[in-house]
Amino acid sequence: MIETASLVSPASPVSLVDQHCHGVLRTELGLGTFETRLGAPAAGRAAAGTTLFDTQLGFAVRRWCPPLLGLAPHCPPARYLARRRELGALETARRLLRATGITTYLVDSAADEGTDERSGPEEMASLGAAGARRIVRLERLAERVADVSGGAGSFLAGLAETVHTEAATAVAFSCASGTGGSSGTGGGACESELPEPPAPGAVRGAAARWLAGRRAGGALTDPLLLRHLLWTAIATGRPLQLLPGGADPTALTGFAAATAGLGTDLVLLDPYPYHRQAARLASVFPHVYADLGPALARTGPRAAAVLAESLESAPFGKLLFSSGARGLPELQVVAVRAFTEAVDRVLGGWVAEGAWAAADATRVAGLIAGGNARRVYGLPPAGG
Amino acid sequence: MIETASLVSPASPVSLVDQHCHGVLRTELGLGTFETRLGAPAAGRAAAGTTLFDTQLGFAVRRWCPPLLGLAPHCPPARYLARRRELGALETARRLLRATGITTYLVDSAADEGTDERSGPEEMASLGAAGARRIVRLERLAERVADVSGGAGSFLAGLAETVHTEAATAVAFSCASGTGGSSGTGGGACESELPEPPAPGAVRGAAARWLAGRRAGGALTDPLLLRHLLWTAIATGRPLQLLPGGADPTALTGFAAATAGLGTDLVLLDPYPYHRQAARLASVFPHVYADLGPALARTGPRAAAVLAESLESAPFGKLLFSSGARGLPELQVVAVRAFTEAVDRVLGGWVAEGAWAAADATRVAGLIAGGNARRVYGLPPAGG
Amino acid sequence: MIETASLVSPASPVSLVDQHCHGVLRTELGLGTFETRLGAPAAGRAAAGTTLFDTQLGFAVRRWCPPLLGLAPHCPPARYLARRRELGALETARRLLRATGITTYLVDSAADEGTDERSGPEEMASLGAAGARRIVRLERLAERVADVSGGAGSFLAGLAETVHTEAATAVAFSCASGTGGSSGTGGGACESELPEPPAPGAVRGAAARWLAGRRAGGALTDPLLLRHLLWTAIATGRPLQLLPGGADPTALTGFAAATAGLGTDLVLLDPYPYHRQAARLASVFPHVYADLGPALARTGPRAAAVLAESLESAPFGKLLFSSGARGLPELQVVAVRAFTEAVDRVLGGWVAEGAWAAADATRVAGLIAGGNARRVYGLPPAGG
Repeated sequence: MIETASLVSPASPVSLVDQHCHGVLRTELGLGTFETRLGAPAAGRAAAGTTLFDTQLGFAVRRWCPPLLGLAPHCPPARYLARRRELGALETARRLLRATGITTYLVDSAADEGTDERSGPEEMASLGAAGARRIVRLERLAERVADVSGGAGSFLAGLAETVHTEAATAVAFSCASGTGGSSGTGGGACESELPEPPAPGAVRGAAARWLAGRRAGGALTDPLLLRHLLWTAIATGRPLQLLPGGADPTALTGFAAATAGLGTDLVLLDPYPYHRQAARLASVFPHVYADLGPALARTGPRAAAVLAESLESAPFGKLLFSSGARGLPELQVVAVRAFTEAVDRVLGGWVAEGAWAAADATRVAGLIAGGNARRVYGLPPAGG
Repeated sequence: MIETASLVSPASPVSLVDQHCHGVLRTELGLGTFETRLGAPAAGRAAAGTTLFDTQLGFAVRRWCPPLLGLAPHCPPARYLARRRELGALETARRLLRATGITTYLVDSAADEGTDERSGPEEMASLGAAGARRIVRLERLAERVADVSGGAGSFLAGLAETVHTEAATAVAFSCASGTGGSSGTGGGACESELPEPPAPGAVRGAAARWLAGRRAGGALTDPLLLRHLLWTAIATGRPLQLLPGGADPTALTGFAAATAGLGTDLVLLDPYPYHRQAARLASVFPHVYADLGPALARTGPRAAAVLAESLESAPFGKLLFSSGARGLPELQVVAVRAFTEAVDRVLGGWVAEGAWAAADATRVAGLIAGGNARRVYGLPPAGG
Repeated sequence: MIETASLVSPASPVSLVDQHCHGVLRTELGLGTFETRLGAPAAGRAAAGTTLFDTQLGFAVRRWCPPLLGLAPHCPPARYLARRRELGALETARRLLRATGITTYLVDSAADEGTDERSGPEEMASLGAAGARRIVRLERLAERVADVSGGAGSFLAGLAETVHTEAATAVAFSCASGTGGSSGTGGGACESELPEPPAPGAVRGAAARWLAGRRAGGALTDPLLLRHLLWTAIATGRPLQLLPGGADPTALTGFAAATAGLGTDLVLLDPYPYHRQAARLASVFPHVYADLGPALARTGPRAAAVLAESLESAPFGKLLFSSGARGLPELQVVAVRAFTEAVDRVLGGWVAEGAWAAADATRVAGLIAGGNARRVYGLPPAGG
């Protein structure tokens, strides 16, 4: 077990909520397929002459994971992968996830709908001996509805009904394509100067055009339809997780202003390297929250610096821990270790220099680790 | 008295100029109204289940202000507010401001024109036992002129005359709406590809449209009129303070290029989280300056990191201390404490490791604390 | 000799490649002309009442360079300049460059074509007792071709032939104007939503218009022609160095996506203050690399922080050391000292705290110092 109890005060064990992750891969991984998964989301393979094990994440996985499978820290990747295959993907996941101390996983459905390659929330709960809830990825939902719809009218009616139905059981919605995530250039559906709900006639026209040119399984990228989809989700009141995908979330200021006061929270996922901008938006808009996200795992010994920057302007009730893991349970291990070390170093340092009261530090650590997520997503209290 | 004399060299007391603040609130504040003032400028109330005392600024106020009113550091907010009401708003302001060591306040007129809720420059001087000068907010000036103008012609003539008249006594002009401050999305009046002075005919048309649709007190948001207003202010030669309002000031590159060599200085106010970008602009354009601003107070123990980042590329003659305080004299206290600690830690650290000569560190600390502001705004020398 | 051998492991001397610099100035410099060269690229003179010696670069030059010319550290600038003139520009360059340990200089032709004011690659090699290769600046190349072309047809044919010819001997191409460098506002030729090669007819039209309005020596700023020029260079397979010039390189995401898989590497030069964004792009696209650049020299004691931030998300095979020096050999001295100290502090610190294995740190230091550049530019191996 990772010593998560060391979060500032050893006497106050903290209940960790992984507020955004994907299911673990159930397939066996070779050296190459494992390495590719260490890359940035949407990244390709390593450049010729380089390896993705030469990254902060690669070094962090080699530091923290081998001991949990009975090997020495920093052992060669091939040795680690051999041990992983020896145990099998699911037994590896079980050992790694149970070592994290995470008590609840919020699992994004982006990539695991209709396949048996990834664990769904139920299997994540079983593997991790923890709770798990489902996050519904809006693009995939719309594409599934489109696959069974006859025309624009039935598509839009089906979309409205499915979003409403999912809201009853899902813990949140998520969306990448509408918020800069597709291009990284800030040209997403919510970044127009008028991020209001589009007019019904325009929605119907866009739906007809998209369906007419679409083959089964075709991806939803139309900005107007994505905007409609986001507003449909907003209407349910479930928290909406937005992935800026490397773009500056300051571009979402207009969307945040347009959705203020409606009772639906927005969570800015994985905002690095614009985590200060995400924290600032969380300080300006009561309904906007900032995810610490995979940057903690991916920046290795720099996690403390990234955490400290996020804590500069975000109200402490507005920051949320997550692993952002995408298939490898190693990312949950590294995220928790990086987060725990960073919290101890940063908050503990402020207590040591007299800037913060010790009781405040312990309380804030608990909020970020899981307390804020429990409040935002309506999860049962820790230990409850 | 806060030990401002500890700025690197105890033998060289430094004269602090607060180069941008607003008047202190003269009304009594309850726990809720005080808390709201801890939020980011333009922010609303705290999210449900959270409090704005759970911010770096909230923690810093609790750390540094209670002792100045005879209470223990980190005492509960309710206890502090009770003591504040016991003393009264003005006596509290007197005690807090006089503890800062600030010798000159530059007070923005943005919010205190025509009301008796806030101290003007004269009262700030009296409360703080210091000097004070007035900064004229351009939008408010234009709105006052519009309130008494019959049509576009008399409005534009009155505007030109009033800006000219104010320039004779004001220490600087300031503007938020034209520089991204309104939307945070970089779409301000000065960020167009052609940030030149607009043509007279276009200005007259925009003025007529604005006045026709305006009721008394209506805000000026028309981009073309704002651009005209900025160029009118530029012509006076008084320094012009620009508030990017959370947007990247790199978008002002074109405006900086267009105004270079005219003899008017631009001061980028409160650029966080783009303080490195503001510092870089100050390194590229001789007439551009960067404000350290409320980020020092609002980031608590991270003020040293923010200061160090600002010092990476800005010439040391181009950085200016300010509190950016908006009504609470507590912000001046926290800003000065954060600045003093940050300077000692950052510049003192560079001297200790041999990177800087000690005499240089003392000199640079004095420049940023007040020397640069005295030069830019034409204030009398310290002690003079 | 600067102790470059201290890069993490004293037993492993590292071979430094300066992967982007300009030739040293061969003319004698006075106090004023030297001072101006300390400013940011494209910056003007210092603001009235300030000096560019009051910058991190100014302080760093005074710290590190006087001892190499027999003076005391932090001696007054006038004393240093007098000694510099006493030795002469070329003897000063010889002493300074040979103290750096740089083994190969990649010298940009941007400013030294057709003049005798700057050392070309051959003289840089001779002065530095090192290897040197030439980087061809695309804008200058196009302007030279335009100077001798009769019309659009002969210009475009000449351009294609000259780029092809240069590719046979140049180590890389470089471009500033097409990538935000001209305006700093992100409006460069490669930042359009469709960064594809422009159509031949449109290129011919743009060439005709440009040539018709051009006098000999006139600069190339037409976005469409610049885009054509970049794609012409891409086709050669030589690495292409892009200067974002203070703009966020995230705006180049579309261009990076459009050029992926073509076999030509893109190197983002001098990305500060967006070095984290450049590092992130290098993590997403296999063919994108990030330059550490002049920020190391220009941020003085903050070089370690800037390096650490670059190392957060960039794969370690994707970061490249350079001085970015523009005429003063002092910049190479400061860049190497800053880099060496930063590597020792950052990587050494991670080894000390157990985050990295010592052998990994030594290996990564060697990659960034020169190993990656040797691989990307096809240079002979160190010591080879």
